[in-house]
Amino acid sequence: MNYADRLDLAILECGNPCLVGLDPHLSLLPEPFSAAADPKTPRAERALLVEQFLIEVIDLCAGRVPAVKPQSAFFERLGADGALAWERVVAEARRAGLLVIGDVKRGDIASTARAYAQAYLEDAGDSICDAITVNPYLGSDSVEPLLEVCKRTGAGLYILVRTSNPGSAIFQEHGEPPLVDIVAREVERWGESLRGECGFSSIGAVVGATHPAELARLRQIMAHAPFLIPGYGAQGAGVADTLGGFLPEGRGALVNSSRGILYAWKRPEYAGRSWKDASCAALEHMQLEFSKALAH
Amino acid sequence: MNYADRLDLAILECGNPCLVGLDPHLSLLPEPFSAAADPKTPRAERALLVEQFLIEVIDLCAGRVPAVKPQSAFFERLGADGALAWERVVAEARRAGLLVIGDVKRGDIASTARAYAQAYLEDAGDSICDAITVNPYLGSDSVEPLLEVCKRTGAGLYILVRTSNPGSAIFQEHGEPPLVDIVAREVERWGESLRGECGFSSIGAVVGATHPAELARLRQIMAHAPFLIPGYGAQGAGVADTLGGFLPEGRGALVNSSRGILYAWKRPEYAGRSWKDASCAALEHMQLEFSKALAH
Repeated sequence: MNYADRLDLAILECGNPCLVGLDPHLSLLPEPFSAAADPKTPRAERALLVEQFLIEVIDLCAGRVPAVKPQSAFFERLGADGALAWERVVAEARRAGLLVIGDVKRGDIASTARAYAQAYLEDAGDSICDAITVNPYLGSDSVEPLLEVCKRTGAGLYILVRTSNPGSAIFQEHGEPPLVDIVAREVERWGESLRGECGFSSIGAVVGATHPAELARLRQIMAHAPFLIPGYGAQGAGVADTLGGFLPEGRGALVNSSRGILYAWKRPEYAGRSWKDASCAALEHMQLEFSKALAH
Repeated sequence: MNYADRLDLAILECGNPCLVGLDPHLSLLPEPFSAAADPKTPRAERALLVEQFLIEVIDLCAGRVPAVKPQSAFFERLGADGALAWERVVAEARRAGLLVIGDVKRGDIASTARAYAQAYLEDAGDSICDAITVNPYLGSDSVEPLLEVCKRTGAGLYILVRTSNPGSAIFQEHGEPPLVDIVAREVERWGESLRGECGFSSIGAVVGATHPAELARLRQIMAHAPFLIPGYGAQGAGVADTLGGFLPEGRGALVNSSRGILYAWKRPEYAGRSWKDASCAALEHMQLEFSKALAH
């Protein structure tokens, strides 16, 4: 089954589109993992603490949400030890039945793009990702080697189209029509030969919830792309802001929350709870919000 | 000394602007490293072969060229073992007195961008890079955390402006003025507070030699940015195509060659030579070409 169909099935089975971002900010890890933030802790130990924390998070997510999204940067910060933690976390999430979207935002030319595809979607053994995020700045020929690997392996891609950060407009909205429209058209075209039985493609788009009108407009241009929608929660967008990204029946989109779930214990509304209770409650709250909003 | 000044000094001392790209394409490694291409070779062993090959390349480059540019993708392909090889190769290149430009093309928002900066420019111990390549698609606020780290540590950045691949125009040339002009203006602005004694900045630009007219035009917009110029050699551009990127006296630019140097033994003109002899001859040829062209 290709990525589009695996995703569709997972969203239907879980009954919600929640994507939990695995962003191990060292300084935010709760007890008993907080020694990861201490530079005096040996690096291998810091990486092990990150791994142990995320394995508990995965345990909390399994069977409840369709997918998790480990963020490469926080693993890379711990060098080769972090890379090992990445492999173990990805493998553990897959064993737990979760789809894994590797948030690596890679993009490079020709044979280098191919090496990235092999690294994350083809040659990684148990640590293979179901999909990765891709930066399109280098153009179509930088994406083609990734598409080829997706055709061969059934993997998926999420191309950055409109990101959720406040400063994203300067380049992404440049020109008339804006650059995002040109990228969006390419995403739809790249996805044509990678459609699943479900009707949408394995080639998706990252479009931030922090630009709701744009989200709905880009959904028109990319009628067959699964959306990965960041910006909900800690970044300020609410459920209503994400709705323009969905296809009928609440399909075709995942909404990400990272800090809002993992570090819920830091939020006043969960004061006094253990980190895991707080994360669990925050996740339930998110699931409920989306189940309600998408039922209408 | 900040990156701009270290770079300027290295170019003056070596008398050439040659940058050797460390791209360990597994299938191109010469004997006795070729078992790295065999999927049956254990991964740790493949990574060790990559490391040993590149350490010989570094030995060949030391004292002759200002800098080397390891390409992350080919290391990532070997997972955590590749990450360890990356660390050892970077550390070895620095010990050999070479500047190291980590070709990672990272780009992400806020705290994630910060984690990437820490990973490569701040917290990596002996394996710290002098500079990294950065993808600007996410906008100014995605670059700012990297600039802050550069200010603190004296590191440098090379922002992708116009890449050397044939398909780069579709997004990079979009709009009027083209997107590259907008990115170039930002690069110049980002670099303002990071200028060295030499007059140019630690914040540079990647501009491909495969678009020579554009190279000269972008040099006007980015008068203070060191250029990293890919596209020479295996990608088809000649010395003359790169000249528009230089500042007076052959300063302010590096020209990259990866496959043309590392895999020179595959080229007919070096038939019958050992890989190291072939690489050495190819490097000398490149150095000579640039010394001559820049002397005028």
